[in-house]
Parts: sequence; C-alpha cells; structure tokens
Amino acid sequence: MDIRKVFVGDGSKKRKKLKGILLLSGLTLVGAVTLSAFSVPNSVSDDVVFQASTADALYSSVFDGYITYGKLKRNGDFGLGAPDHIDGEIMAIDGKYYQSKTDGTVRETDDAETVSWATVKFFKPEKSFDILQPIDCEDFKATLDKKLPTVNVFYAIKVVGVFDSVQYQNFPRMEKPYASFSEGLANAVNEEVNDVEGTFMGFRFPEKTAPDLNVPQYHLHLLTNDKQNAGHINTCKIRRARVYIDAASQLKVDLPNTLPYYQSPLDGEVIGSG
Amino acid sequence: MDIRKVFVGDGSKKRKKLKGILLLSGLTLVGAVTLSAFSVPNSVSDDVVFQASTADALYSSVFDGYITYGKLKRNGDFGLGAPDHIDGEIMAIDGKYYQSKTDGTVRETDDAETVSWATVKFFKPEKSFDILQPIDCEDFKATLDKKLPTVNVFYAIKVVGVFDSVQYQNFPRMEKPYASFSEGLANAVNEEVNDVEGTFMGFRFPEKTAPDLNVPQYHLHLLTNDKQNAGHINTCKIRRARVYIDAASQLKVDLPNTLPYYQSPLDGEVIGSG
Repeated sequence: MDIRKVFVGDGSKKRKKLKGILLLSGLTLVGAVTLSAFSVPNSVSDDVVFQASTADALYSSVFDGYITYGKLKRNGDFGLGAPDHIDGEIMAIDGKYYQSKTDGTVRETDDAETVSWATVKFFKPEKSFDILQPIDCEDFKATLDKKLPTVNVFYAIKVVGVFDSVQYQNFPRMEKPYASFSEGLANAVNEEVNDVEGTFMGFRFPEKTAPDLNVPQYHLHLLTNDKQNAGHINTCKIRRARVYIDAASQLKVDLPNTLPYYQSPLDGEVIGSG
Repeated sequence: MDIRKVFVGDGSKKRKKLKGILLLSGLTLVGAVTLSAFSVPNSVSDDVVFQASTADALYSSVFDGYITYGKLKRNGDFGLGAPDHIDGEIMAIDGKYYQSKTDGTVRETDDAETVSWATVKFFKPEKSFDILQPIDCEDFKATLDKKLPTVNVFYAIKVVGVFDSVQYQNFPRMEKPYASFSEGLANAVNEEVNDVEGTFMGFRFPEKTAPDLNVPQYHLHLLTNDKQNAGHINTCKIRRARVYIDAASQLKVDLPNTLPYYQSPLDGEVIGSG
C-alpha cells in the first residue's frame, strides 16, 4: 500500500477506496473536493523531500550559507528556506528561488549564492481541493490534518488563493560572531498584507520525527503574485484557495560540510512548530 | 571543506592537516595509526546512509517487515537492522545480509524477505587504524569519539578483529497483536562468546539528530567469522582489531508505506543509545 492509493483509491481495493473517500470528506468549511490526476507514474514511495542542514544547526547559530541555490534546484523546484546569514527568507516555486529581506525587498536569487537551511522537493501533488469559504490559518491546518491519510509521513503543501490577511516575518541578517537564534527571532520584522493574491508554500513534517531535524507540523512561507510580499507566515486568513498536497515517504538530509557545523555543540534551544 | 580533508589533510592546507593528525593521535590504548587510501574519488558529501523506518516506529511496535532485503541491497552493502516481526537481528557485510535469531541460528537471508527497520550504507572507509592492546567497548567508543573530526555527522563503523568477549542479544520474534518494544526487549536472549574472531558492524549517529529517527551515538552488531554467533552488541572486550571509519553527511530516511505505520500514534518510549 502507498499513500497514493489511500488518496485516490484503487479499483481492485474497494474498501481502501471507500476509506480514502471517507478521509477526504466530513468537512463543513471546505467545499468541493477535487482529486487531481497524477502527472508522474512513480509511486509516492519514490518521492523524496530534500533537506539542507537541520533545525538543530539553525537553532545553534550555524548561520553560514553552505549549499548553493544551484544544488538546491537539482533537488527540488518548490520549498522554503533560510539564506546565507539568514538574511531574510527563501521561497521556491516552479523552479525559481526568491529571497525576501527585512527591508521588504523580494528578489530572484542567483544559483551561485548559498543557503544556510532549506527544505525543497520536486512538487508532484497527488491531491487538490478547494477552500470556498474564509478560514483562518490555524483552522486550515487542523482541517488539513483531518484530510490527510496519516500524519506520519512528509507532505509538501501549496496553497494558491486570495488571502484576506497574512501576517509574515523576515528573519534579520545575522553577523559574526553570531548571536543566538532566539535573539535573531526577537529582531525579526513582522508585516501584514491584506486582500492579496498569492501562494503559500511549505511542508508538514511528522511531529516527533521533526523537532531536531526540521519544523514539526506545518511550516509555510508566503509569496504574493506581484512578488511584492514574501516571508515566513505566522498567521493568516484564507478567503478562497486551491490546496495542493504532495505526500512523500522519503527524506534526504544533507548536513553542512563546514567547520562551524562540525564544531557546533548543537545545543541551541529547539523553538518548536513554525 | 569536507570530512575527508580533515581526516587526511591537504597539501595546500597545512594547518588543517596538522589538526587532522593531532586528532588522530593522543591515544595510549590505540597503537599505530594507519591512514588508508581512498578507493572512491567522490567526496564524503556524496556519501549517503540509508535508513528504513524510524526508531520511533520501532519503539511504537511497528514491527511488520515492509522493505525487502533486495531493496536494502540496492542502498547498501553494509549495516544492521531488525527482521520482519523483529525476529532476531540483521547483520550486513560485503553485500550479504544475515539474520540471527533467539534460537542461536545465523543464516543468510533471501532478497524477497522483508525487514522492519534497518540502517545500511555502501561501505567506503576514509580511515582505518589498529587497536593493538585490549580495550573494552565503552572505552573503545570514547576513544573513537575523540578521533573523529566531528560528532555531528553520520559514521559507518567496521571493527575486524579478535575479541576476548562479546555480550550480545537477539530480540525475540514478536507476534500480533504486538506487545511493547520494552516487553520484547525484556525477553531478548542474551549470550556471551569468548576468544572469537569476527566483525562489529554499525553506525554512529549524532546525539540530538538521532533519538526519534535512529539510535544515538554507537549502534553495533556482531558477526563471527565462522557465522556461528551474531546479534546486537551490549558490551565487549576487543583484544586487537582494525577499525574502519566511513563518514557520511547525507541520510536518506525511508518511511514504511503500511497501514500499521500510518495509523501508529508513534508514542513508544524512546529507549536511547544502543
């Protein structure tokens, strides 16, 4: 059995199909459920999420970029991350990588620049559904959790829609000698944008598998269609949207080959869910 | 920089070379240090440890085999694991996979059989050294830790030698409905073998990255040369040995595509280091 079968059902396995459909219904806030066709014949079990560095490393002030956007692109066309020196946030979509900064700018990155932390994937959604009525981010996450066949695998999540409001932040560029992650977070620049079209991109990681490796549960970044607003999402209200879900049962973790990583006590405080 | 350079030094980087050599010395219990040649030109950063299922899953009684030895072989020729129903222990060396059981038998496995948990790698050691005087396992691990350029990456460890004593265990076959991992562990069969030639095979995982994913720090299994004794090592005394170390900065985690895994609360108690 693989996740794809739970999502889509299988003519030869009626009971599983029924179970899959039941999992996808039972929601009042979410409207029509659309099961998208598969664009790729590979099973979900061949799908790999690629992760550069770890949450532990980031929380322990290993802020130096060590992997290029070029290499990230060879491992995914979709995702999020933290630039070299955590100079803002990273949004990846349709093979393009964007950097947002605390000064409010958003730019496409060069392949030779480096990244300190990232989670990316070649986005191949197995499922999509529409949100037809307004819903805030926390309710959206809780609703989505109930629609997933399991919370024990990795999911890439893309939300394309119109948003009544999005509160997002950009981490400030850190300079050596690096202060703690918490201190950086305290200086993050928070902004709010209203009545905007855009995309949320990110991941859901299993709760317990993640805390030292990645962000547990949901971690989403925003990129508006006009490329004027982008960053790490704190709270939001979705007016209407199409949600795409791409399950993966494999994770490839790439650790930094750098002296700061090798020498870090990796004793930073785990911040928790994103 | 990569780990290989720290191990071996680099003509253009005298200070790093010196540091590497210093890291490799300073031991009284361990004799001549031999730096082996590299058999593969790839850098350590391309090396991948492959892990089937997670420690969380095992500790939460997800004991069903889900991945074949055949697939494991495509991801590594060396390593260890737990068979379907945790019916004993798995030892992999030189591309062959062996299963030991509580009845004391050791046999080579068939590719079509399945495994519930495993960590494997294509073994390509960057470094080797000789143990010339007796040392017990705990001191050996502490000594080895000091020789590593960092404890923040993954290492495959192979110890080929003569052992004064090895206390090892075989996990008992679990039957559905599965009891807890702790209950299985309480019924493990412990044995001791003395004055024997054989191999220890296993891994060292970073302390904090591992606990929910894999065994923190060292996890070693035994296979004697005569294939008569094998299992998970609890304690040992090495008489003399050659130790091979294979560093890796990438980990690929493969989660089970099974209903028991999908439905598990993953709430098993984390047992800790191996």
